Amino acid sequence: MNERAFQDFYPDDYAVCYGCGHLNPLGLHVRSFWEGEESVCSFEPRAEHTAVAGFVYGGLIASLIDCHGTGTAAAAAYRAENRALDSLPAFRFVTASLHVDYRRPTPLGPPLLLRGRVVEHKGRKVVVAIRLTAAGELCAEGSVVAVQIPESMLQKR
Amino acid sequence: MNERAFQDFYPDDYAVCYGCGHLNPLGLHVRSFWEGEESVCSFEPRAEHTAVAGFVYGGLIASLIDCHGTGTAAAAAYRAENRALDSLPAFRFVTASLHVDYRRPTPLGPPLLLRGRVVEHKGRKVVVAIRLTAAGELCAEGSVVAVQIPESMLQKR
Repeated sequence: MNERAFQDFYPDDYAVCYGCGHLNPLGLHVRSFWEGEESVCSFEPRAEHTAVAGFVYGGLIASLIDCHGTGTAAAAAYRAENRALDSLPAFRFVTASLHVDYRRPTPLGPPLLLRGRVVEHKGRKVVVAIRLTAAGELCAEGSVVAVQIPESMLQKR
Repeated sequence: MNERAFQDFYPDDYAVCYGCGHLNPLGLHVRSFWEGEESVCSFEPRAEHTAVAGFVYGGLIASLIDCHGTGTAAAAAYRAENRALDSLPAFRFVTASLHVDYRRPTPLGPPLLLRGRVVEHKGRKVVVAIRLTAAGELCAEGSVVAVQIPESMLQKR
């Protein structure tokens, strides 16, 4: 996709995340987009992202849900203010809690498709529900409670 | 530590996990040990495991809790049968659900210490509660519902 992802608009200070920072050369580079009311992300696991042979590592799935969730939260905050993703002040969310239910073993091979929906948005908190499918089959469901980044995390910039 | 970790006893087929497999050259190599009734794991994040500058990526924390949880579940299953970790048949657990509450931003620098406790063990299911500290401060709490690996995940061996 040539379209710019939510994460492409993160200011540099916010763009070093291992999961989704475009400035982290070793990271996963999670990229999320709107598709109507849903946010979507497609990810191709690397060969090393294995649990047992043939299946995707659950920690990777948790990581994808995490960053797709915080990215969706940021994009939803811009949307709620009718602001473009490149407008200031920038929104950046971090995870307060993460829950993942693994519904079936996730095959290692096809791209993983994540679809997110904002299920709550109140003040600095956004809750995002996410479904992860592979080859059309539901493999995991998760939810991310995302909160706007606290000042205490910006002291080390 | 020269002592062998729970994960060092995984048969080769079970030892390719990105999180804890000693045969995954690019993985995290989570290593867990008993300390009385608790399981412990110490992990030094890599420089790239960042969220924003100075803080650990939450997806890594979820991954550590995941693999320390499944490792603890396997070790608990051997213990319940009064069997050594290298005895057969081998126990290997996978994650049915994972929950993480991030209590405070986790500083990137000091080793992360995870302590697990088995809070339920019934049939093929073990639930492990885990606390993660850095420099003595509680940074995250999580729980892992681990189940013995299903047959369907062994077909691709």
